[in-house]
Amino acid sequence: MNGFDLTINNLLETAARDNGDQKIVYMGKSVTYNEFYKNALNLSRNLIRIGVRKNDVVAVIDYDSLMYMYAYYSIPMIGSILHTVNIRYPPEIIFYTMQRADDSYIMIDESFMGLIVKNRDYLNFIKGIIVNSAGHRHFDVNIPVYYFDDLLKDSDAKFEEPDENDTATLFFTSGTTGLPKGVSFTHRQLVLHSIASIAALSNEPIKYNINDVIMPLVPMFHVHAWGIPYTSIMNGLKYVLPGKYDVPRILETMATERISMSAMVPTILYMLLSDKNAKQAFQNLNLKVIIGGAALSRGLAERARAYGIDVVSGYGMSETAPILTLGVYNRKVINKSDEEKFEFRLKTGIPIPMVSLRVVNNNRDVENNGKEIGEIIVRAPWLTKGYIKDEEKTRELWKDGWLHTGDLAVVDEYGYVKIVDREKDAIKSGGEFIPSLILEDLISTISGVNEVAVVAKSDDKWGERPVAFINGNLSVEELKLKMMEFVDTGRIAKFWIPDDFIFVNEMPKTSTGKIDKKVLREKLR
Amino acid sequence: MNGFDLTINNLLETAARDNGDQKIVYMGKSVTYNEFYKNALNLSRNLIRIGVRKNDVVAVIDYDSLMYMYAYYSIPMIGSILHTVNIRYPPEIIFYTMQRADDSYIMIDESFMGLIVKNRDYLNFIKGIIVNSAGHRHFDVNIPVYYFDDLLKDSDAKFEEPDENDTATLFFTSGTTGLPKGVSFTHRQLVLHSIASIAALSNEPIKYNINDVIMPLVPMFHVHAWGIPYTSIMNGLKYVLPGKYDVPRILETMATERISMSAMVPTILYMLLSDKNAKQAFQNLNLKVIIGGAALSRGLAERARAYGIDVVSGYGMSETAPILTLGVYNRKVINKSDEEKFEFRLKTGIPIPMVSLRVVNNNRDVENNGKEIGEIIVRAPWLTKGYIKDEEKTRELWKDGWLHTGDLAVVDEYGYVKIVDREKDAIKSGGEFIPSLILEDLISTISGVNEVAVVAKSDDKWGERPVAFINGNLSVEELKLKMMEFVDTGRIAKFWIPDDFIFVNEMPKTSTGKIDKKVLREKLR
Repeated sequence: MNGFDLTINNLLETAARDNGDQKIVYMGKSVTYNEFYKNALNLSRNLIRIGVRKNDVVAVIDYDSLMYMYAYYSIPMIGSILHTVNIRYPPEIIFYTMQRADDSYIMIDESFMGLIVKNRDYLNFIKGIIVNSAGHRHFDVNIPVYYFDDLLKDSDAKFEEPDENDTATLFFTSGTTGLPKGVSFTHRQLVLHSIASIAALSNEPIKYNINDVIMPLVPMFHVHAWGIPYTSIMNGLKYVLPGKYDVPRILETMATERISMSAMVPTILYMLLSDKNAKQAFQNLNLKVIIGGAALSRGLAERARAYGIDVVSGYGMSETAPILTLGVYNRKVINKSDEEKFEFRLKTGIPIPMVSLRVVNNNRDVENNGKEIGEIIVRAPWLTKGYIKDEEKTRELWKDGWLHTGDLAVVDEYGYVKIVDREKDAIKSGGEFIPSLILEDLISTISGVNEVAVVAKSDDKWGERPVAFINGNLSVEELKLKMMEFVDTGRIAKFWIPDDFIFVNEMPKTSTGKIDKKVLREKLR
Repeated sequence: MNGFDLTINNLLETAARDNGDQKIVYMGKSVTYNEFYKNALNLSRNLIRIGVRKNDVVAVIDYDSLMYMYAYYSIPMIGSILHTVNIRYPPEIIFYTMQRADDSYIMIDESFMGLIVKNRDYLNFIKGIIVNSAGHRHFDVNIPVYYFDDLLKDSDAKFEEPDENDTATLFFTSGTTGLPKGVSFTHRQLVLHSIASIAALSNEPIKYNINDVIMPLVPMFHVHAWGIPYTSIMNGLKYVLPGKYDVPRILETMATERISMSAMVPTILYMLLSDKNAKQAFQNLNLKVIIGGAALSRGLAERARAYGIDVVSGYGMSETAPILTLGVYNRKVINKSDEEKFEFRLKTGIPIPMVSLRVVNNNRDVENNGKEIGEIIVRAPWLTKGYIKDEEKTRELWKDGWLHTGDLAVVDEYGYVKIVDREKDAIKSGGEFIPSLILEDLISTISGVNEVAVVAKSDDKWGERPVAFINGNLSVEELKLKMMEFVDTGRIAKFWIPDDFIFVNEMPKTSTGKIDKKVLREKLR
């Protein structure tokens, strides 16, 4: 009766009403929330008009564009499902995920149409393609083609608003092991994830607020850009879309748009900081950055700090929408010195509101001593119900009513969680875990090391032994000397020292920019 | 499947897990969240054991005590309904609301038992009384009596967890017109109201965060203390319960517990500031106060500022759980000078997340020009479905899918709403509205005025004319001189000047501490 379900529709309507003249910026041009809402409604109506129906899955293939932003809203608003296609997958995997998701329409930028034209014979399950092409280019496909700008025109087609428990989005995990697995989220889950994110991010040192200008650098195909396209519109922020990730242009946009907040994986931060114009771009910007997707190493965090950037770790996964924890300051650490507090930003963090998080070892919560290692298991109102068409993996994910993250962590006396390894990346030597993330974190602080990854090599005597892959400018001798210093100062155990240090010019990366340990492990076979 | 509904149960379980060693303080003693959760679970189980069932309504009669805090959780956690009884009603009205609410149990402090014993014959609908009496005093009633401390003892009684759409709380509006009307809220509504409150309060100048120490001075019988007993536990704050409102003791507690945040009606703030120890108590406290329930006058806000207190207006009503807007700074005002920004704290504010708010005049949204007056209508996920056993008033409240607040307001160019009158308090003179709240606000700034209320007197010629009731030390001549100054400087129209200024030693107050204009209007008849 009160007519306010937790839907994307109500989220956008309210945002437009409360912050109608706020702006969304793309390539130097902007639309107000009011204009965006009007256009999004027209797009919704025109999708209905061309035949898109409730529960139809619409695949979106693009960089972080304004069209993508419209897709985030217009597709779920008619009860259809937004499939954010990972454009960094090889074509074969892209089509695998599209079939598995039962996609029936594609929304795509013309720059990606080569992929479609070339593979048109595999795409017989697609009913229509919506192309963003200002020149209305012709494409040689046997599928009806519509032009995106036509679908923004006024329409009076009617649609029924979805229920809050209808599926709104789906996408596939980056899949460091095996084929990608599909996960999905409902309107309600996305709205709750957004409001809880706002509440959590408001704490120090992030102090996310209605005056921030945000440009997320988390691809919109990846875990719906950590929910930021919903979170930030709900909170009424000025939103800048980065387009294709081009480091010089991103730095320029950051400076001209006075970006105050962003979010990215460590690799992107590393690339930005390594650019020759970085210092100029970041000075006086007071930029705040949430780092997720992989551990924030001390070395990278210190480099960012030197540029005046406030970095804080976040943690989550595709299955969790994604945010579970943030490295914000709780009451136990807020009054420590800046130097001491810095440590907590590097940790995995503390649970955000409505996240019930446990670290368990043999069905028992670990001690808060920073030592005992257990698996992170969680409950929250925005976790995926399971994997698409995969009951077995769904059962593994959800055991005893808790989502099992497969991440191994410790909890310190202040309640901060720190991931020490992915269960599948863990190195077990002589029956003891060697936490690769702690090793990587320390090695990253050594002068001359740019990137590091520690993986397991099988070993006849110990079962497994660690090997470090290094991208940097220093000698193995220098590395070994430093490792012995870490042992002498009690920071690592002697048996943690990697057996080998292998230098590489470039680290293999997954489609979401994380170092691909699977490839590194294969190199050792 | 993910097992996390929006229930009070999950809110408390998560709070205890995430902030188990945080404290709730009452009368100098404290319990940790962990202890509180354990005790609350035992109270829930023992309520089941003595016969309380799902959907049974339990009336609570007490000051803001630790027992009340347990009641806020333990009663809804078994699917029963918490009825927060307004202890400032006359006994006759108390029993009216208890019957209307279908109360079947009473949870009460022994200090209120006189009321029950005296009226025991009217209470034949009550099945049991839970009394907080350390000495287990005997009471002469024909109803089974249980002692509160006994019900905190370990119990293994089982209960079924409620659904998030089950009713959790009910209470009655303060009723400035006619008999009190009952409203109710579900678990889900309370959880959503809490998370949205956290997100909104995090903005400047409140910057509510996980390090605040909060002592609300909003009675727990009144709109479930604006949701703060849920909001602040969800956010993991140190929570101090004030007990019975005793000004010297409150000031002492504020200083010793280093209270950083509170919430109250203007009258309470006025009382605190008027105490001889106020200056000493507030200095260096950096207290932040949300003012609601009635308009925050400029005079009072300036007095608070002189004591180093950051005051900000909030707005809501019993029907809305209550928070709808807050006078926090949005992007359009954040960069103004402190003096200019101060003005916005006095306004009704901007909508908090998930609140869709309109100000409408003849079914059309008013212009954002600070002049056109319309009625505030709202949608949000936490509005009462209607009035208990009153279909007609429910239909009036909910028209066309919007909750009609009955408050008249303007919206300025920055999007800030400012209430100019209650519809029922509005003064219409010669066909034009005279906004009593604006008049009161201006009069409150005149030196010598302590409290002011402007109400309508019927007038043969003009229909209605304004009359000002004043509590203060100045002459009518001084007042009239000042009013002419306001006219000369363009702040009011000449016809707004009240026809009469009537001096009173004390303002009549409603049960929630607001000035009772109904009584003042009756004086004029």
